[in-house]
Amino acid sequence: MKVTVTITLKPGVLDPQGRAIEHSLLSLGYQDAKEVSTGKLITLDIDEDDENRARQKVAKMCETLLVNTVIEDYDIHCLVADEGDEA
Amino acid sequence: MKVTVTITLKPGVLDPQGRAIEHSLLSLGYQDAKEVSTGKLITLDIDEDDENRARQKVAKMCETLLVNTVIEDYDIHCLVADEGDEA
Repeated sequence: MKVTVTITLKPGVLDPQGRAIEHSLLSLGYQDAKEVSTGKLITLDIDEDDENRARQKVAKMCETLLVNTVIEDYDIHCLVADEGDEA
Repeated sequence: MKVTVTITLKPGVLDPQGRAIEHSLLSLGYQDAKEVSTGKLITLDIDEDDENRARQKVAKMCETLLVNTVIEDYDIHCLVADEGDEA
């Protein structure tokens, strides 16, 4: 099962990369982009057909390696294959 | 309108960060994670109510600044507010 993890900074944590992008967009003439923030995306293929168990496994991976839970939040999306069982 | 841009490496482009994560997961005992790949996530607030125009604006930003179109693909998701007009 394909799983996507999106990792974003917790609210209140400084996002210098987001600020830099915002300033660059402004200086290129894009005045209508505000509140730019950045994050990470990790996709992986899990040897697990059950969505709940896949979610649990990936959550464990997030807590132990992928995410710095002090400053980051994460979200797990399972991409179920076309089996009439779309998530 | 809140817009999320997901940026991933084109197929065939080396992803050393993904390889590193895969190896780390393996050495931590997670044997069922395969094909790990990484990407970037940029969220921004666009001063535009029309979804198509917002998409066009963000696509332009992607082409000129946010994305290296030689090696990266991007995907634009608009998060329409609850107005019975969900995307």
